[in-house]
Amino acid sequence: MTSFDEGAAARAHDRQNSLTKPPGSLGRLEDLAIFLAGWQRRDRPRLDHAQALVFAGNHGIVAQGVNPFPAEVTALMVQNFHQGGAAINQLCAVAGAALTVVPLSLDQPTADFTQGPAMTADEVASAMQAGADAVDPTADVLLLGEMGIGNSTVAAALAAASFGGDGRDWVGPGTGAEGEVLSAKIRAVGAGLARHSPDDTRGTLAAFGGREQAAICGAVLRARELGVPVILDGFICTAAAAVLTRDDPQALDHCLIGHESAEPGHRRLIAALGAQPILSLDMRLGEGSGAAVALMVLRGAVACHNGMATFAEAGFG
Amino acid sequence: MTSFDEGAAARAHDRQNSLTKPPGSLGRLEDLAIFLAGWQRRDRPRLDHAQALVFAGNHGIVAQGVNPFPAEVTALMVQNFHQGGAAINQLCAVAGAALTVVPLSLDQPTADFTQGPAMTADEVASAMQAGADAVDPTADVLLLGEMGIGNSTVAAALAAASFGGDGRDWVGPGTGAEGEVLSAKIRAVGAGLARHSPDDTRGTLAAFGGREQAAICGAVLRARELGVPVILDGFICTAAAAVLTRDDPQALDHCLIGHESAEPGHRRLIAALGAQPILSLDMRLGEGSGAAVALMVLRGAVACHNGMATFAEAGFG
Repeated sequence: MTSFDEGAAARAHDRQNSLTKPPGSLGRLEDLAIFLAGWQRRDRPRLDHAQALVFAGNHGIVAQGVNPFPAEVTALMVQNFHQGGAAINQLCAVAGAALTVVPLSLDQPTADFTQGPAMTADEVASAMQAGADAVDPTADVLLLGEMGIGNSTVAAALAAASFGGDGRDWVGPGTGAEGEVLSAKIRAVGAGLARHSPDDTRGTLAAFGGREQAAICGAVLRARELGVPVILDGFICTAAAAVLTRDDPQALDHCLIGHESAEPGHRRLIAALGAQPILSLDMRLGEGSGAAVALMVLRGAVACHNGMATFAEAGFG
Repeated sequence: MTSFDEGAAARAHDRQNSLTKPPGSLGRLEDLAIFLAGWQRRDRPRLDHAQALVFAGNHGIVAQGVNPFPAEVTALMVQNFHQGGAAINQLCAVAGAALTVVPLSLDQPTADFTQGPAMTADEVASAMQAGADAVDPTADVLLLGEMGIGNSTVAAALAAASFGGDGRDWVGPGTGAEGEVLSAKIRAVGAGLARHSPDDTRGTLAAFGGREQAAICGAVLRARELGVPVILDGFICTAAAAVLTRDDPQALDHCLIGHESAEPGHRRLIAALGAQPILSLDMRLGEGSGAAVALMVLRGAVACHNGMATFAEAGFG
């Protein structure tokens, strides 16, 4: 477990105050540079190698009519990722991130969590391992995203299990649920919460799923071991990672929230985590898309931190 | 005067709805792509050539003790821009913008607006022309920024003249004013508003200054003639451009607000304009720094718009 290097962060803070600008005037760009310095344990953080991981899975909960799209769309979108046609492909290209898509047994959906546990303990362990194994140890920053028809319902259940509340508190439109589909989502989450009362990370993942959520948890843990800062994406990605706080309230200290999604549960979830998103652009796509846009802000932060002249260098009295 | 091309915007909107994502799920990235399409009069907007202009000027109002830094800092920062050591140099490099810095008679500060008009009509015209002349007609987007010790006091006066209120409503810390310096800013704006009652754009610029504000107005007008969309920066840049609304309430329709500054008057100003900033990162540096970070979001928007596969192209049923 790599810890935040307070010394590197303090030196980065001192450098910020020596640069040719009023102290603090770059706002969050300064905070982000110092955050990266602390977790990378390096006074001058770098973003030479940004990795984006998108995990995909399928979910038995779709049997409850929670999504206007059929489960087959998950595999079609994975194919689209591989062909370079999705939003995340364009955003990674612009932001300078290397994208890897990891489909997780798409032909074996998790079980319907209103009827029983979504996954066995072995399935949870296997998906977490797949997430951990996908992390590049040489990455300077890791972006996480997901794709899976039905997984905003899973996210609502995970958030409720982690932070309390019921389906109404955490369910939103996701890919476009409204009317009866939206009601079905709320009912499904309520039924799941009535059936399962997990009290730790693995138990929560087993209860509600899914594979991509477990993989996100595995990747976040591995990144922490390696000292790689993480940019989480929107509601579904954040809800998955937040399950780790059931075992360790500090588990996400090395993670940034790339953006506040338009999915209403995300604002509540960010507040529950005491976090502050980098962007708020009414995005609600998933795929890591908000994390990729946020990476560009980090690039600005690091460029200023490393490239600006100090007052002394610039010849100020 | 180039107008917004409703046809190009409508076709861009249709394209957005054909791309492999739930309609609307890219949020403001979709709006920004459509905005650029309309103003560039092109279904597929482009950002091959982004120009950043930073205008610098000096202000007689510094005689009222409104800034903790001496006026000499303006020229030192211009030198820093030329040497590549400022934040805007790093941010333009990351965002892919060509930066030009335009110092405007730094050795001839405008007059103290508490004692008389800051500029003559000829000086206003000359500075506006300098701003217009600096715009590259081949630019796909124009970023505007400014530098000038004392110019957050000028900005507060311009905002009050344009939208009402007094010094207390619009004055903030700027580069770091507090205590007596902050009080001096409020008094100076009040004295200026008591002395001058301009009712149009040029009269307002003449009353309060300064040269970089007039240049920003000139550049915004020229960009509109050319059909070049503009990204405004923070409080000072927005307050300058907003003076154009005194002559024409639609004068800023081709302008985006890159970010909401930490300078408190900016939120009020954005609300008065009925605008929505792209970013909110607690930045308060000026120089066009917030506009440059916002350009990266536009790059993401354009990359998705032009690069994503449609559902038909991706082989979705």
